[in-house]
Amino acid sequence: MTLNALTPDFLAALDAQLGPKALRPVDVRYLEEPRGRWAGQAGAVVAPASTAEVAIVLAAAAQARVGVVPYSGGTGLVGGQIMPDGAGALLLSLERMTAIRAVYPEENVLIAEAGAILEEVHRAAEAVERVYPLTIASKGSARVGGLLACNAGGVNVLRYGNARDICLGLEVVFADGRIWNGLSRLRKDNTGYDLRNLLIGSEGTLGVITAASLKLVPRPAGEGTALLVVPSPEAALALLSMARDHMGEAVSAFELMSGEGLRFQAETMPDLRQPFEARPEWFVLIDVGLARGLDPAQALETLFAEAFEAGLVSDGIVAQNDAQRHQFWEVREQMPEANRRIGSVSSHDISVPLGLVPEFIRRADAHFGTMGDIRINCFGHLGDGNLHYNIFPAQGRSKAEYVTRRDEIKRAVHDISHDLGGSHSAEHGIGRLKVQDLITYGDPVKIAMMREIKRVLDPVGILNPGAVLG
Amino acid sequence: MTLNALTPDFLAALDAQLGPKALRPVDVRYLEEPRGRWAGQAGAVVAPASTAEVAIVLAAAAQARVGVVPYSGGTGLVGGQIMPDGAGALLLSLERMTAIRAVYPEENVLIAEAGAILEEVHRAAEAVERVYPLTIASKGSARVGGLLACNAGGVNVLRYGNARDICLGLEVVFADGRIWNGLSRLRKDNTGYDLRNLLIGSEGTLGVITAASLKLVPRPAGEGTALLVVPSPEAALALLSMARDHMGEAVSAFELMSGEGLRFQAETMPDLRQPFEARPEWFVLIDVGLARGLDPAQALETLFAEAFEAGLVSDGIVAQNDAQRHQFWEVREQMPEANRRIGSVSSHDISVPLGLVPEFIRRADAHFGTMGDIRINCFGHLGDGNLHYNIFPAQGRSKAEYVTRRDEIKRAVHDISHDLGGSHSAEHGIGRLKVQDLITYGDPVKIAMMREIKRVLDPVGILNPGAVLG
Repeated sequence: MTLNALTPDFLAALDAQLGPKALRPVDVRYLEEPRGRWAGQAGAVVAPASTAEVAIVLAAAAQARVGVVPYSGGTGLVGGQIMPDGAGALLLSLERMTAIRAVYPEENVLIAEAGAILEEVHRAAEAVERVYPLTIASKGSARVGGLLACNAGGVNVLRYGNARDICLGLEVVFADGRIWNGLSRLRKDNTGYDLRNLLIGSEGTLGVITAASLKLVPRPAGEGTALLVVPSPEAALALLSMARDHMGEAVSAFELMSGEGLRFQAETMPDLRQPFEARPEWFVLIDVGLARGLDPAQALETLFAEAFEAGLVSDGIVAQNDAQRHQFWEVREQMPEANRRIGSVSSHDISVPLGLVPEFIRRADAHFGTMGDIRINCFGHLGDGNLHYNIFPAQGRSKAEYVTRRDEIKRAVHDISHDLGGSHSAEHGIGRLKVQDLITYGDPVKIAMMREIKRVLDPVGILNPGAVLG
Repeated sequence: MTLNALTPDFLAALDAQLGPKALRPVDVRYLEEPRGRWAGQAGAVVAPASTAEVAIVLAAAAQARVGVVPYSGGTGLVGGQIMPDGAGALLLSLERMTAIRAVYPEENVLIAEAGAILEEVHRAAEAVERVYPLTIASKGSARVGGLLACNAGGVNVLRYGNARDICLGLEVVFADGRIWNGLSRLRKDNTGYDLRNLLIGSEGTLGVITAASLKLVPRPAGEGTALLVVPSPEAALALLSMARDHMGEAVSAFELMSGEGLRFQAETMPDLRQPFEARPEWFVLIDVGLARGLDPAQALETLFAEAFEAGLVSDGIVAQNDAQRHQFWEVREQMPEANRRIGSVSSHDISVPLGLVPEFIRRADAHFGTMGDIRINCFGHLGDGNLHYNIFPAQGRSKAEYVTRRDEIKRAVHDISHDLGGSHSAEHGIGRLKVQDLITYGDPVKIAMMREIKRVLDPVGILNPGAVLG
């Protein structure tokens, strides 16, 4: 189905139906994305003030057959928010719908509009001594709608799950302007098909999320963090298993990092304190949040000692206070920025079954290790089997020299992950970057069913044209 | 779309394509359901030996336009497995597909075929020192496929979630016989729409689940149980909040029960030991599974003392050993059987937002309390806001005397729940029992979308005709 370009008449008619300031100029910030890979374009930007206005926009767009690109915080890494070609679409920004509509501390529920910024949600939860556990590096600009549309992950998935797992309900405007009021505060509701999870992760192609009912959790009584040097990824996995035997779900984060990552930080962030005197090949950050009656530092010391005894850990530091915890987390949180400053040739977001993580690293290192003219920084959410296996230019060379090899590199990483039953998009989504990967690696029956579902929920195909299904 | 009746030719042709013993007589056990409300009927029973055979059955049925009723353990409480009228359909039993295909202890993953019985899954998990946390009273006969098709709940939802939350992937045969191989062991995979959750909870109307990849969890280092007497449902909620402040997610179950329930047990199960000398009006069972270094009994005693001090608990017993834990759990687990022996007029499975549970009980008691000729046993998963608010005949009267009032009673319970933003089916599903409730209380846009989805995934409408959408 071909879409029409925006016309002045269409925009004038839309403007007449919306409150003041809904239609706005196409600012350049709407057309950029964090990795600078695409330049977007848009015929107009509309920022509705309410769910009813979102419904007006979508009904009008469906009627006129014009494309709509839902726009949230603009922090996505796979181009889901950027439409580089086609008839200049209507960019639908949720930035004016930022209300925290309600907080129910005794229910551990918070209802936020789609435009609310993640950090604001964190603050609203903290104000009632609760935690909204989803957190990612771009928390200062990422918005609730986009986080859900992309089923965002982050560092606490191990304990609390991804965006999907900590969402109870949605308010959604469908492609024809119909509003689904699914803002449930219920913990259990088995009344019909699961539209909520169908919308979560659909990257703006099936409907526009306008508000969400989010799960909060109690803040753990005591929190602690350690950096532990491991001889190998296998040892890291065995350490994770030991940690969970000791502390169960209380293990909140288990992040693998490499010596190369520390070298990148030393090179690009000389002021950042290096955690170890001798740079290890591999180390993990482990974060725990424990029940009353347990001292987190002591529990981590006990784990450290037992793991050391078992040969799973050769060195380490347990944070003795919050300042030190913060410092350890800085090492992890500055990793994407250090990577950005080095400038990656190709970044990846793969996952494999947990037990096959060491095998993935072995195969990928064997494949790329012989090249010589590249550097590899492999890090990520080991507890979720999710690695960012990123390839960088050799020291002193620039990523521009590698442009022609990018596709081959990416293909190799994804092939290895696929061979091991893995995914080429663990937490970033498909967007426009990985449409071809979905076709190459995806189950054909699943893709066929996705197309059918898209066809009935968005028959004209106005929603985020080109994303996910191409 | 009208469906055709099964013909001898169809069955002969099907038989020729399947291995021996796939087609079998329509045994009466396939036509009964636990509450004895419906008598089923079926033209034939087919029990395929493999996923490929399920695909053959569905492709043939779609071609011939004959209805198929997927049949799992037969333990569902809403008639989803029973087709009382229409052209005698093909009953598709998964009873021969019972393999535990693989267990990955280090990944906390187990892959089971749809016909595996829940208790077998529990045993397979225990054999590697893990737990599959879903557990319900019918665990000795309920099968994996049905548990997922109905998104089963049970007593551990508070900590581990329902069937949906502890499933990583599915293998599904769609209505036209196509097989989706989605048996992922991945913890994170953001590659396209969430078919898994669409199938889970669709009650056999969108596809037939043939196998599932299930999440296991480590067994907590120490487990404990207490029965605590609370002055009111409000106090029970405050106690839950206090318990989670102390122990976080380590609170595995938090079940509310009433003195009426204990009277029912005294009446129908005189050998079952009553937990309290003086029968309380309300009490809770709290179960915890703690990390190493904590004594569960001691942690529960601490909670008990603090809650007593705060006026939230007036009496209680903390289990001192496993035998006592088992005895406390017996009180909870025998509640459905005691109810069955009394014989309910109308049973319900409602949920409301957690904070509104006391208000629900107040309103419902006010409505039914004046009747005089009924008894109420309200119990359930308070931690999930899920109550079984069940109505029984007055002592000495039989449920048959109340048949004409059943619809009015059910309507009143569901109206009160709906007014509070609640659900008329928290964990049992829609089946055939609650089709009208879904229409009465459901969001019309959601129902319209459900119909659209059903139409594309099962265009001929062969799958579980009459269930969920009527």
